Amino acid sequence: MTAAVNAHNIPDGAVVVGVDFGTLSGRAVVLRVRDGAELGAAEHPYPHAVLTDRLPGGGPALPPDTALQVPEDYREVLRRAVPAALADAGADPADVIGIGTDFTACTVLPTTADGTPLCEVPGFADRPHAYAKLWKHHAAQPEADEINALAAERGEPWLARYGGKISSEWEFAKGLELLREDPEAYGRADRWIEAADWIVWELCGRETRNVSTAGYKGIHQDGAWPTRDFLAALDPRFASFAEDKIAFPLSPQGERAGGLTARAAAWTGLPEGTPVAVGTIDAHVTAASADTVAPGEMLAIMGTSTCHVMNAEAGAAPAEVPGMCGVVDGGIVPGLWGYEAGQSGVGDIFAWFADSFAGGAASREAAENGESLHDLLSRRATGRPPGAHGLVALDWHSGNRSVLVDHDLSGVIAGLTLATRPEDVYAALVEATAYGARTIVDAFESSGVPVHGFTVAGGLKRNPFVMGVYADVLGRPLHLADSDQAPAAGAAIHAAAAAGAYPGIPEASAAMGGRTRDAVLPDPGRTAAYDRLYAVYTDLHDHFGRGGSDALHRLRAIRNAALNGGGAPAGAEHEERIR
Amino acid sequence: MTAAVNAHNIPDGAVVVGVDFGTLSGRAVVLRVRDGAELGAAEHPYPHAVLTDRLPGGGPALPPDTALQVPEDYREVLRRAVPAALADAGADPADVIGIGTDFTACTVLPTTADGTPLCEVPGFADRPHAYAKLWKHHAAQPEADEINALAAERGEPWLARYGGKISSEWEFAKGLELLREDPEAYGRADRWIEAADWIVWELCGRETRNVSTAGYKGIHQDGAWPTRDFLAALDPRFASFAEDKIAFPLSPQGERAGGLTARAAAWTGLPEGTPVAVGTIDAHVTAASADTVAPGEMLAIMGTSTCHVMNAEAGAAPAEVPGMCGVVDGGIVPGLWGYEAGQSGVGDIFAWFADSFAGGAASREAAENGESLHDLLSRRATGRPPGAHGLVALDWHSGNRSVLVDHDLSGVIAGLTLATRPEDVYAALVEATAYGARTIVDAFESSGVPVHGFTVAGGLKRNPFVMGVYADVLGRPLHLADSDQAPAAGAAIHAAAAAGAYPGIPEASAAMGGRTRDAVLPDPGRTAAYDRLYAVYTDLHDHFGRGGSDALHRLRAIRNAALNGGGAPAGAEHEERIR
Repeated sequence: MTAAVNAHNIPDGAVVVGVDFGTLSGRAVVLRVRDGAELGAAEHPYPHAVLTDRLPGGGPALPPDTALQVPEDYREVLRRAVPAALADAGADPADVIGIGTDFTACTVLPTTADGTPLCEVPGFADRPHAYAKLWKHHAAQPEADEINALAAERGEPWLARYGGKISSEWEFAKGLELLREDPEAYGRADRWIEAADWIVWELCGRETRNVSTAGYKGIHQDGAWPTRDFLAALDPRFASFAEDKIAFPLSPQGERAGGLTARAAAWTGLPEGTPVAVGTIDAHVTAASADTVAPGEMLAIMGTSTCHVMNAEAGAAPAEVPGMCGVVDGGIVPGLWGYEAGQSGVGDIFAWFADSFAGGAASREAAENGESLHDLLSRRATGRPPGAHGLVALDWHSGNRSVLVDHDLSGVIAGLTLATRPEDVYAALVEATAYGARTIVDAFESSGVPVHGFTVAGGLKRNPFVMGVYADVLGRPLHLADSDQAPAAGAAIHAAAAAGAYPGIPEASAAMGGRTRDAVLPDPGRTAAYDRLYAVYTDLHDHFGRGGSDALHRLRAIRNAALNGGGAPAGAEHEERIR
Repeated sequence: MTAAVNAHNIPDGAVVVGVDFGTLSGRAVVLRVRDGAELGAAEHPYPHAVLTDRLPGGGPALPPDTALQVPEDYREVLRRAVPAALADAGADPADVIGIGTDFTACTVLPTTADGTPLCEVPGFADRPHAYAKLWKHHAAQPEADEINALAAERGEPWLARYGGKISSEWEFAKGLELLREDPEAYGRADRWIEAADWIVWELCGRETRNVSTAGYKGIHQDGAWPTRDFLAALDPRFASFAEDKIAFPLSPQGERAGGLTARAAAWTGLPEGTPVAVGTIDAHVTAASADTVAPGEMLAIMGTSTCHVMNAEAGAAPAEVPGMCGVVDGGIVPGLWGYEAGQSGVGDIFAWFADSFAGGAASREAAENGESLHDLLSRRATGRPPGAHGLVALDWHSGNRSVLVDHDLSGVIAGLTLATRPEDVYAALVEATAYGARTIVDAFESSGVPVHGFTVAGGLKRNPFVMGVYADVLGRPLHLADSDQAPAAGAAIHAAAAAGAYPGIPEASAAMGGRTRDAVLPDPGRTAAYDRLYAVYTDLHDHFGRGGSDALHRLRAIRNAALNGGGAPAGAEHEERIR
């Protein structure tokens, strides 16, 4: 059964395995190839979770904004979650025709030429920069600022493909940070590789690089990386970064990277040689399971943050959408330009508020009822006329990814009175993220990229209050992805395509993915009311985000100075810098 | 002992009684005349507190922003608190040489020509407008808007004395509301009288009006009331409002209004004929007990809200300070121009936050420690470098009294992140009110009215965290009023002056009042850091408060429409109105 099958001849019992490597755990699912039925699943938390304070062996405190991971934790997912999912499904490993993976991105690590993570090389275990840098490692902001400033100055053609700014989370920013902070580790790293590609290397023993992470996180555009000249201008020692450490041939999405090695077969319990799909990004692969790979079908994966992915109508060159995260040829499926946009804080903002700011009577009542504060606040906020709480918030608690691409922004709440209750603020925060989503949809449409449909995947799709607000604010019906394991299921669908069970991802997605159309309908009256509130949001958004006021940047600079020095920043030079 | 004594011949045992009529209760104190020692005190809560929902007899729901009181509750304070305070002091009523009172203002009521409150007149008990309207009754905002617009249009000379706007709380706004909402009650009201004057009438049986409430709340300036012409232009039926209902001769502060009637003597247990001081305002009379009647000594009475009172250097005409509440010739002591400014929300903002928004770990820890959330939040916020929390707030949860005079503004918090903790927001709110105080001080100084000293009275003077923030933000030492019953003590000091024990209020204040100078010193480093945060505050203050953005007004209009209609406001006409 490890031989390729085709779409017209899929054995009833054929299954694929998808493994989603998330922020805190890995999840494996087993899908039936002919119809995508989810037969089993299992999760395994990373033993070291996210390293923010210390390395596993102890040592000095890690600097602020550090977020590292231990690569061995990823292997542990293969050893634990895959066999457990197969057992859960009651599946015979012999029926598995392929395995696919997806990963958070940009999560990137330094390795030797044979793929050994640098932190596993003797003498490097005590060096923070030898570990995998998780997507939300934000310590490379100075390097990102440098790259953006230089690229703008030199008019680098790729800059517009990223909405005018690359993120501190990405390969070049984190790579430059590695060079600056630990030149010795930089020198020892033969590779700077996305975890998405590294895990595939671990599975099939063959180094591949995928077009998606290369495009969205690696500044690969129109067949080229940033030039040697550009990199040398950043730092002479950085000149050959791309060619030495990342510039390997790229594989399209949904291709076969290779077959399972004996070692990986032993880990997973799958037959040696089982086809392995090339690496993918968790958000983008979800388009396959949500059946939203057609042009104009925006998919919002809503959890702690939201990622929006959408293919656009075919064209020679992509439209330039201000503040999008990136547009990549074949980034979601081969042959279409795939867009990504994002909101850096969504569910985590709701959780932050519910966990720490819903006090007093709300807290006591929730405890008495034995319900979560989220449920209590959502219930109280449901059914009230839009705007009755008098509030508008800016959802920038973790900065703004799209459309402002400004990590140093922060949240704002306006309209508070002594009558404001916790459920009012909670509702305002939910609405703020919905306004943020609408801002993104509007940016696409006003840039000539029509958005035909809006589909939601991720944990928040199960929250009726949040979904109702989004439908009303967007003034559109919401479609909901069927799978509750949407990224892992997408990885499995990629595996089915890679194994040749379908001609490509779109066909595999149509057969195996699914969504419930028009699951949440907007109320026209509420939409009209939200239009007025959205106008206020836009007023604040543009004032604080587009240069009307630098108040939030000044607050951030004052905060950073206070935290660093324990005292006040001093001197005219600093004042000039932060203004 | 009821005969007048003089400053050079005050019997050791001579005492005075001061009665402070607050928002929820009355407090009586007994002070020794020769040195101001507080010998005893007692409090009596108003049985009906504040009527916001129903009248005492039931009936329909009262409209939003209604805040009424029952005059009989005030008499009850005379019957209960005065004897209790005398008993607490162990004082012989025969040793009492005078009684003084102070009242919230503008708290105003309609009466018959003999001083009977209209709500006690048969047939009027079920009419809301027949009751006393408490200072914080805000339902007359439309009338205040009308008065302000017309006064500006006509260039009324008194308008500048009130910072360019009169408040919805004041006599003319509430009087016009009475006329509009209940013309029959308006017609039956022979008097429209401050409770401050009414209680004196109750005590000595003689109708007097005091220069202070007349000036600060009654638009009496340069010896005149608003003209008949002006009032007729508001409403022809309102033309004779001033001359008919409020324009009676005015008595200076610290004068004797009369002697205690037999009825009031029976209530209080004091001898008939005991000198009674003319009516006063609670905030202004506190300057006597805090010993801050000298020019340039700003007194901030800090509680749920803050009132600032200060005498200015003598001059023919007062400086016009933008956004002050009022400036009145002899408003605090005869012969000096007395200024008033205010912050409409201070301690109530801290309480609102602590009561409803300090959830999660903070709430659990406070409960475990058996401490108040205020104490926990203050403790956690103490000693951190200014700005380390990254926040700046606008303290407009109840609108802004000075310097913007805009009741429709609301609170803003900027700089929120997922790392923001309850103590951070608490600190930011405390700081916001300190920035608000600094804005007021700056407005005085930049208008040519120097502020030599800053003294705090009121409940918040006992909060070291709040006081420390104020000293640092203002960059000045704080002096603290000694008395914890500062308004009642001030009323007693007025009584001593009225009884002739001292030549006037300044001398009585110097002998009987007191403050601790330089009780809280600023830290120059923290002041420098707060200068930068204050600049951010001013940026937000001016943007949202001075026309840069009408976002807060739009939110208020949307909220009001949503609450009134249960739905969205509709139509272009409305849009025009709220923009």
